This record gives sequence, structure tokens and C-alpha cells, in this order.
Amino acid sequence: MDPVLLTDLYELTMLEAYFAERMSGEAVFELFVRKLPPERNFLVAAGLAEVVDYLTNLAFGDDDLAWMRASGRFSDSFVDALREFRFTGDVDAMPEGTPFFPNEPILRVSAALPQAQFIESRVLNLIHYETVVASKAVRCVLAAKGRLLVDFGMRRAHAAEAGLLSARASYLAGFDGTATVEAGRRYAIPLYGTMAHSYVQAHESEMAAFEAFARVHRESAFLLIDTYDTERAAHEVVELSRRLARDGIPITGVRIDSGDLGLLARRVRRILDAGGCQSVKIFASGNLDEHRVRELVDANAPIDGYGIGTRMNTSADAPFLDCAYKLTEYQGRPRRKRSQGKATLPGRKQVYRQRHDDGFTDFLTLASEKREGTPLLVPVMRGGRLIAPLPSLAQSREHARAQVASLPSRFRALEGGATQEVVVSDALHTLAAEFDACH
Amino acid sequence: MDPVLLTDLYELTMLEAYFAERMSGEAVFELFVRKLPPERNFLVAAGLAEVVDYLTNLAFGDDDLAWMRASGRFSDSFVDALREFRFTGDVDAMPEGTPFFPNEPILRVSAALPQAQFIESRVLNLIHYETVVASKAVRCVLAAKGRLLVDFGMRRAHAAEAGLLSARASYLAGFDGTATVEAGRRYAIPLYGTMAHSYVQAHESEMAAFEAFARVHRESAFLLIDTYDTERAAHEVVELSRRLARDGIPITGVRIDSGDLGLLARRVRRILDAGGCQSVKIFASGNLDEHRVRELVDANAPIDGYGIGTRMNTSADAPFLDCAYKLTEYQGRPRRKRSQGKATLPGRKQVYRQRHDDGFTDFLTLASEKREGTPLLVPVMRGGRLIAPLPSLAQSREHARAQVASLPSRFRALEGGATQEVVVSDALHTLAAEFDACH
Repeated sequence: MDPVLLTDLYELTMLEAYFAERMSGEAVFELFVRKLPPERNFLVAAGLAEVVDYLTNLAFGDDDLAWMRASGRFSDSFVDALREFRFTGDVDAMPEGTPFFPNEPILRVSAALPQAQFIESRVLNLIHYETVVASKAVRCVLAAKGRLLVDFGMRRAHAAEAGLLSARASYLAGFDGTATVEAGRRYAIPLYGTMAHSYVQAHESEMAAFEAFARVHRESAFLLIDTYDTERAAHEVVELSRRLARDGIPITGVRIDSGDLGLLARRVRRILDAGGCQSVKIFASGNLDEHRVRELVDANAPIDGYGIGTRMNTSADAPFLDCAYKLTEYQGRPRRKRSQGKATLPGRKQVYRQRHDDGFTDFLTLASEKREGTPLLVPVMRGGRLIAPLPSLAQSREHARAQVASLPSRFRALEGGATQEVVVSDALHTLAAEFDACH
Repeated sequence: MDPVLLTDLYELTMLEAYFAERMSGEAVFELFVRKLPPERNFLVAAGLAEVVDYLTNLAFGDDDLAWMRASGRFSDSFVDALREFRFTGDVDAMPEGTPFFPNEPILRVSAALPQAQFIESRVLNLIHYETVVASKAVRCVLAAKGRLLVDFGMRRAHAAEAGLLSARASYLAGFDGTATVEAGRRYAIPLYGTMAHSYVQAHESEMAAFEAFARVHRESAFLLIDTYDTERAAHEVVELSRRLARDGIPITGVRIDSGDLGLLARRVRRILDAGGCQSVKIFASGNLDEHRVRELVDANAPIDGYGIGTRMNTSADAPFLDCAYKLTEYQGRPRRKRSQGKATLPGRKQVYRQRHDDGFTDFLTLASEKREGTPLLVPVMRGGRLIAPLPSLAQSREHARAQVASLPSRFRALEGGATQEVVVSDALHTLAAEFDACH
């Protein structure tokens, strides 16, 4: 998934210029989000594991170099030099699952300028998407109040890797599993699945479809009951359940995918309970997001779990973040841009989170400053190598859970508009003013 | 990019049931969009080339089978049978670049039930995303009225494959190129690139950065002029241009990435022209979409080209389509679902487009009916093989251009709300009524 040429052309043209100019001093770049989408009160850092993987394996292959040579865009000496190109720099980052706010760097790279520059496009591509999804998925988790949540959205995620990474990022944010098999395999995420309408339709009758499926999948059979008439199907489930009980075959649950989910779930629950199927779970899906889940949960709908797809995997209400990866220091001297509306703060930075009775305060400081509180950027790679194994996905998931639980409740509301002051240190302000005076 | 296990778990569990039940009759599935997002007047079919590639190469590898066996979810006999699993069915589809409307199948698969079912998740994943992007990008093309358009969005596309496929889909829809190197390489799309702010920042002065870059990239140098002060930088470009002219080095253009793009472009154009740099192009980027481009074009801003990123690559105003892949026939008999709000029409279908003086009418018919007009679904694969090479990307791009140009002007407006009646044939209505009478 990581072709080295999955990058913007300008990374290569800048690289060629840096090589020609022999500019290889240490550069510090920081990745941050400029502002929150209106519907978000906080974001959840994600994607670091994939970034580490990318940086660890970064190398131009023979094919890549041959293509570059044949393109006629680059000098032979530059292409030859790329053969040895590796990432040998340092990375500090917020652990995955950490809630963060605008202007706080979540990743800081210190490396030779060509290295630190070249990785920009793919590092943003990875961190941006996983953070978008984790920040959306955590809202579903807050709304679900403990109900089972499963990622159902690979089919409308934006192509292959989004299908995989949204399973990972939503699990990190507290989902219980995914329907995407390759994600389950790759990240050891629990897999869930039911059946499609086509399975029911292909059989001569709904009952025939339910029975065949349950007999093949004796360990766990979730039956989809809304293909023709949901209540009629619930009665069929009761009848089937009695027949299968003689063979010791249970029905695990039913799924409702359309209509008034709350109303149907109530009616189905009544039919199932009256028929002795109290242990049959009800699972709901279909166009869900955190708002729909909250409505259903608040109305005490008898729904045990939710499949959430498209709107989570595409983060439909906020499909992108205004994030950037910017140079803040070169050869020990601070750098910034002053572009209108996009100015950045210079210098190598740290974020300290100080907890107090009313919640917490974040301080954006120079990395060289010391403050009370927890420094959020922690060392990850030194000299191109991991300094310690990253937390497992399960550990990061627990970190996210604990961190989100400790946020003041205004952040955990689904409505946006909760603001968190990020205090910029005097030393940072002074540095910015000094830089401007000479540029 | 196509792991065979990039699918939903239920595809595998249904497959196992079909194997156990020996259900392998011919099934017909159709892929269609239920309704248009409010901001779209039509959609542009895309993704067929990747689907053909997926179907042609579909096979379970030893690793996949070993994982399935180890998972404990599937019977050994089922896993063994998958070793021979291939796609050997038929595909009919709208050619890429064809404008289409709700409820019109854009892809029809006829194959043994297990095959036609299994491919659902990945086929949707590919067609959905490329169609989302092509349908957004074509709006930018309409707004740009011939100005150069370049895809700049890989970094905020939803992970790797979205970065690649959005370059492809936007080029199909009429963009002139992309910044994403791997997409240029893979799909032979023209590549464009400039420089980043960090390049300017890393140098001791903006002028030093501009000069170094232009000397290394003598064939084409686009200079980014908004890092500190855009007008000051334009004056530097004039000065540099004179100095470099002595060495026969041209400056191709400048890029403005922030601020009031129309106002700055006018001022920069004046500075450049006054300084003898009439041939230096102005390129604009930064948070653009079709609406911003239209404003700038309508205001006659002196901008020669636009870099469009995030909002196009994520189709930010409509990041997903309500699309589905549904069984419409099994063993020669029609099938439909009647789920509330999601009912489908039964039977193997065709779409005929009849052009007339006021535009055109689309007829949704049974495949067996004959009508005046152009049948939009054309044969693509038979027996698992392409019946003829697909059009090249360039040919599909020309097809899209011609088809979009021939749409009545109300569809080509950026405002949504233009409706296209899709006439459902009497035979289809009758078939649906007959089906309902017996289910």
C-alpha cells in the first residue's frame, strides 16, 4: 500500500533542488490541525502506526528509479542518489487515541531537510484520514452508551485503504469490531457479519433462507429480517427457533436495516419475547450516524448493537480536516510562514496538558520549555528507528477510552461549539515576533 | 491493492451457505444509485476499469486460505473449494464517463450466484468512489471554462488508493493532470507540481529559494509566491526573471495559495506585465472547489490554472452516494426487495437514452425489450473475460467530455435541482406487480 511514488510531484522537484544545493541541515516539521469542523469538540490522534511503518520501509526501488529516469524530469545524478535515500530522522508524536485541539502539533519530525520534506504527502495522507475517522467514530461510541458498534462501511469508504484504515481507526476509537475481513486479519480486530438481502431473495422463501443459513452457521447466525415484511419475518424466526432447538441450533440475532428502526425493534422484541426468543439479539443498521444512534438509545429502543457504515467511514459531516505539515525550524533557527489566514508559529514545540478541577488547560510551548502537566508529544523514533515498540492497537484503544472519559462533559456532547483554550507560551510569542522583525 | 479478503464477512458466510446448499444458479445483480445528492444534477460513471481488473484477477491465495482455516469460522471443505474460485461471469456496464441518473443500473453482473454475490463489496467500493469523484470533478471542469485544472489532493484524500483513484477519476472527468506521481505513472496522467512553502522558508531569503529552484528546474519552474508577502514576491520574480534571462532560463509561472486570490492575481499580473513577464502564468490553489473557481472565472481573474485538492478528492459536499448492488434475477426468475424506502425493481434491465429537441429521455426497460435510442449498458465481459479491450483513459475522457457537452444546459449548472425523468417501462411495472402478488 506504500509505493514510494505515492507522493506529490513537488516533493521530488524540491528534493532534487535540495540535493543540487546540498541543503541537508536538520529540519523540524510539525503536523497540526488549524481548526475544528463545527461538529467536532475535539479530535482523536490516529495513524501513527502506519506512519512508523512507512518511514521504516521508505526506499526507492529499481522500478521507481527506472520510471523516474525514463520520465525525463530528473537528472541522472539525482535519481542515482535516491538509491540510498532512507528516513534516518526523529519522530515525536501524541500517542494514538489522544484527544487534541487546533494548533497543537500531534507529530513532530526532525530530520535532514530532504527526508523531513519528502515524507510530507504520505504522512499527511495517513494521519489525516485515520484522525478524521477516529474523531467521527468516537462520537458514535459516546452516543451508543455501551451498545455494540460494528464498522459496516468498507463498500462506501473511499477505496481500498480507506476501508482498512477506517476499520482500524474506528476500533481505536471504541468500536467493537468490523465487517471488513482483511482489516480483521491485518489488525486483529473482531469480525462481525450477518447476511445480505440477496441471500434471502435468492431462496424460494424467507424461511428457507433463514433455516439454511442457521444450519450452516451453527455457532452464530444473525438473520436479516427486513427484506419483505419485518414483523412477518420475526414470527418466522420464532417458528424456526423452535424447530432448530430440537437440533440444538441457536439463532443468535436478527438485523433490521430499514424503516423506523425504533418502532420495528420494539415490535420485533415483543414478538421474539412472546415466542420464547428472549436471547435473540436485535441489531440495527441503515444510514446510521451518532445522531441516529443517540435518538434510538435515548428512546430506549431495544437494540443491542448497531452497524455503522458510510457516514462514519467517510466522516460525512466533516470529511476532511484543515491540517498541515509545516517547517518550524531549519538548522537550529526558527521558521514560519505568514500567508494570509495560514500563518504558523515558529520553533520546535511541545504541548503540556495540565489537569485541574474544572477540566484541563493545554499549553503550547517551545520544546525547550518546562511546564507542569503531561507533555503530549513523546519520543517515537530516533535515527530512523523505533525507540520502543508502539502500543498495541488494543492498548491504544484503552488509552483513547480513558482519555476521552476524562474530558470535561461539554466535550463529550455531540453538539459542537465547546471550546478549549490552548495557551501559547510567552516564549513562543516572542520567537514569532523576533522572526517577523527580520523577514 | 486488491486483497481478496478486502470484503465484508457476510460475503464469505453467505458463500459458505451457498456452497453447502449447492446454490450456484445464474444470478443477476445490478448496481445503481438510489438518489442524487442535492448538489448534483447528474453523475458520471467511473471505476469500470478497476472492476474489470479485480474480476479478472480474483482468486484466493494460499495465505488467504490458511488464514480462513486458522480463523475457525469456516469448514475445511468450504475453504478447500475456494481454491478454485474464479469470476467466470458476464458484465454489462455503462462506459466510463457516461452521465447517468438515479435508478439506472450502471453495471449488471450475470454469474453463478456465489460469484455474483461475493464481488459485491469490492465492486461497490471501486465504482462508488470513482463515481463520487468524477461526478464532483466534472463540476469543477464546467466551472473552469477551459482553464487548466490539476488534482492537488492526495494528502487529504482518504488514504492511498483514494489518492490514486481520485487522480484517475478527475482526469476522466476533464482535469488536465495531477500532482500525484504514482497516479501519473500508473495511469499515464500528466503530472504538475510547484514547490511548498517549506522550500521558501528553508532558504535564507525568498529570492535565494526562487533562484535556486529555477536554476535546477530549467524546463519548468513554478514559484510559490505567498509565503511572506505576495506582491513583494511578484517584484522579486520580475527581478529574477531579468537576471535568469541572461542565462536563458525562463520562469514558467507563479502560484498563489492564500488570501484574496482574485485581488492578488490582478495585482501580481500587473506587476509581472509591467516587469516584462507577460508569459509568466498565474496558478491558484487553496481550499478551492467548483464554486470558488466559478466566482474567479466569472470575475475574469487573471488566473491561468487552478490546483484543486481536498474538496474534490473527498467530494466534500457529497462524500458518498446512496448506491446499491442488488439481486434482480435468480435462475431466470425476477427478484426484488420491498424494504421500506429501499424497494428495488425486479428483472434484468437496460437503459435507453432517446435524444430529442428538448434534450433526452431515459427509459428503464427489461433487457429483453427493444426501444429507440442508445442502450447505455454495453457488453464488457463474457465468461469472465473482456470481450474487447476497454477504452483507454484518454478515450473515456473524450467520451465524458462529449456526453457532458451534449447534456441540456440545466444539468450543467452548478446549482442542483435539475431533474431528469427516468421512464420505467410498462413491462417492468408489470413484472414488479406480478412478483409482489406471489411474495
